Amino acid sequence: MNVKVCKFGGTSMATAQTIRKVIRIIKKDPLRRIVVVSAPGKRFKEDIKVTDLLYTLADELIRENNAATFELVRERFLSIAKDLHVITPMKLILQDTLEQMKKIRTTEFIVSRGEYLSAQLLAKVLKFEFIDAGTLIRFKVNAVNYKQTDIVARKALKNKMDVVIPGFYGTTSNGELKLLSRGGSDVTGALIASAVNAKVYENWTDVDGFLICDPKIVSDPHLIEVMTYRELRVLSFMGASILHSDTFFPVARKGIPIHIQNTFNTRSPGTIIYQTLPSPKRASVITGISGIKDFTLIVIEKELLSETVGIDRKILTFPEKMGIKVAHFPSGTDTFSMLIESKFLTEGKLDRLVAQIKKGIKPDLLEVTQNIALISIVGRHLMADNFNMLRLFTALINDNITIKTIDFGSSGVNIVVGVNGEDYTYAIQAIYNEFFLKEDEE
Amino acid sequence: MNVKVCKFGGTSMATAQTIRKVIRIIKKDPLRRIVVVSAPGKRFKEDIKVTDLLYTLADELIRENNAATFELVRERFLSIAKDLHVITPMKLILQDTLEQMKKIRTTEFIVSRGEYLSAQLLAKVLKFEFIDAGTLIRFKVNAVNYKQTDIVARKALKNKMDVVIPGFYGTTSNGELKLLSRGGSDVTGALIASAVNAKVYENWTDVDGFLICDPKIVSDPHLIEVMTYRELRVLSFMGASILHSDTFFPVARKGIPIHIQNTFNTRSPGTIIYQTLPSPKRASVITGISGIKDFTLIVIEKELLSETVGIDRKILTFPEKMGIKVAHFPSGTDTFSMLIESKFLTEGKLDRLVAQIKKGIKPDLLEVTQNIALISIVGRHLMADNFNMLRLFTALINDNITIKTIDFGSSGVNIVVGVNGEDYTYAIQAIYNEFFLKEDEE
Repeated sequence: MNVKVCKFGGTSMATAQTIRKVIRIIKKDPLRRIVVVSAPGKRFKEDIKVTDLLYTLADELIRENNAATFELVRERFLSIAKDLHVITPMKLILQDTLEQMKKIRTTEFIVSRGEYLSAQLLAKVLKFEFIDAGTLIRFKVNAVNYKQTDIVARKALKNKMDVVIPGFYGTTSNGELKLLSRGGSDVTGALIASAVNAKVYENWTDVDGFLICDPKIVSDPHLIEVMTYRELRVLSFMGASILHSDTFFPVARKGIPIHIQNTFNTRSPGTIIYQTLPSPKRASVITGISGIKDFTLIVIEKELLSETVGIDRKILTFPEKMGIKVAHFPSGTDTFSMLIESKFLTEGKLDRLVAQIKKGIKPDLLEVTQNIALISIVGRHLMADNFNMLRLFTALINDNITIKTIDFGSSGVNIVVGVNGEDYTYAIQAIYNEFFLKEDEE
Repeated sequence: MNVKVCKFGGTSMATAQTIRKVIRIIKKDPLRRIVVVSAPGKRFKEDIKVTDLLYTLADELIRENNAATFELVRERFLSIAKDLHVITPMKLILQDTLEQMKKIRTTEFIVSRGEYLSAQLLAKVLKFEFIDAGTLIRFKVNAVNYKQTDIVARKALKNKMDVVIPGFYGTTSNGELKLLSRGGSDVTGALIASAVNAKVYENWTDVDGFLICDPKIVSDPHLIEVMTYRELRVLSFMGASILHSDTFFPVARKGIPIHIQNTFNTRSPGTIIYQTLPSPKRASVITGISGIKDFTLIVIEKELLSETVGIDRKILTFPEKMGIKVAHFPSGTDTFSMLIESKFLTEGKLDRLVAQIKKGIKPDLLEVTQNIALISIVGRHLMADNFNMLRLFTALINDNITIKTIDFGSSGVNIVVGVNGEDYTYAIQAIYNEFFLKEDEE
């Protein structure tokens, strides 16, 4: 469908003033005809999000049959509605919503009303049709039923134009309301974009898009203007986060690009994520740098390990039985190593894992190293040219950073380098300087 | 025990002239008091080894009750015995041996007589005691019983000095004679050295020792003078071969060094292999370079693979069930790759493996790349200093060799680099030139 699905986050929906920006954005492009919204977020640092008010309300209502907090919710919506000249219909909707809440009395239902009211309000202002997420997003038990949602939403939205849909919730086939995880409006937007086969899924938020690396490590890093889903996936897995991680799959599957944009800075190009890039226009070698700090490295050596069929598989059963995910397992002659995030090895789990491996395969040597940081350098162009790889290693070594491990070639889009925990920040800075500041100077 | 166990191979035992060299070596060092020997090998290129004659004889004797080939064996031993002035006792021993062969009539027994006669002959010449391997090396079914051998041989050799022991065979606890695999005299020597806790295990052969790399790739490469067992193991696994691979374990376990030396060039220092190096005297960054040419790379990509506990283990069960050893399995975000020697994937096995993976885990992408060569660069010093790693990569890249994969850090002694098959030779030459020819110039 020749339509853009636009999702606006909580900060964009926070006040009449920010909603005016939203309206201006929607009106600027006639293809922006399907809008998904979050509940109003914080207006200032100490403010409480509508969703958090609703959690309090749910507690009051279910336990004490008391709806005092609803007044705070009502006030927020009415102050926006007043400013946007839709106060009369909103009063009715709010009254009706409170009655429904008292009747249905589930946390899910009560909490979902933030998005519901937000969408109702915007629909009134825009004179768009409100379509309830309950009729579009299908759950089976507690997870989204992607297939069903695709069919149901496609049918429901056929020939529909100019609609506003609340994010964050859906229903099971027998009508029970279910919530997505926190931040799930991103997913609602992706599911809708996928169902209508949108031209693009616009995700409007309060940042310009993905940055090359963590701004806490490098001050004012460049924006990633274009990347692939594969790159995004690698960056997210290794620590970078803006989008809810389930967001990529529904749209990536159909090759629909996601365009992350800033409601408060429409001049920024934002970040566009493609399944496959439309043209090889980008010059920058590196797309992004991310990392996770605290890994534990377990090195296992055993004579003839390399000649024993199935021993690797056997070693991997030990963490598996404990529900521990092994992030990487570099293997050499008679050596098998496991890199595991240390947070999975607390409360004696490391000792238990080591004991089980020792008992199970009787290694000649088992060595545990803590505080290993893994840095993932992501970029299609990085992998294509060995000179860039060399530049990367040289930058690190010239900055006196010891490279402990290298994983190169197992993925088409990234190199993973292991360094000591204390070198983590310096390593990311060194890579950023090499590939971005030097390029800027040229 | 303050003794050196010396093993002499078939070329060293081939003629009276070569045995004179053996005698000179033994007499030169009073600690060389336990000698293990192979059967006489080839005297010239078209010659037949005594062991091969004995296989023919076993066939004749068992199937046709005909011992014609024994004459050739007798002739070889008598010509040596004559030259070394032990013809009278050897005639008796040979006659007795033939009668025993006719009586026992098993291939194992008949073939083992090469080493038996070789040891008898040398014992007579040296005036050393002959001790039969059957009383020292213990088998259980078809494998050496290391524990039993250690106990039995230690007891049997206690307070013994100046003995010659035949290599290549042993017996089960009920006296049945069993052979080690071809080249197994190396193992006999190692088992004996281990049992008596020798100062060193001297393995005398017809080459100077281990070379840095394959002389078919680099002409006249340097000798490896010193290395560790760990390095030897990695080099051997990746293609380099001089010693029977089972040789290391019995001696490595006790920390006994192996000294490989050339009977025909006693001026060469040979190669000494230590458990841990006595002093960090070596300057050379690289110990050796080896490689295997024909690997198949299978790359598997699947959404959420990195977050699915146990999926790596599941993937590894597919080759395991087919008895296929996976040499390396580099893993990245949502990627799992397997490097398998292509020789294990003939006769439709690759197709079957791919089909099973596709059926079993439904990957989003499965890519097969043939003709990947893996090069293992071995050296303790290489791993200790990142500048050397950089030198290695730079040498390859400056020679226009594309690095496809890098495994660095999973082993303490080597880096494994994957290149295209056609770059294999050039890559080894580039590395050798960088680390040896350049150093020579300095």
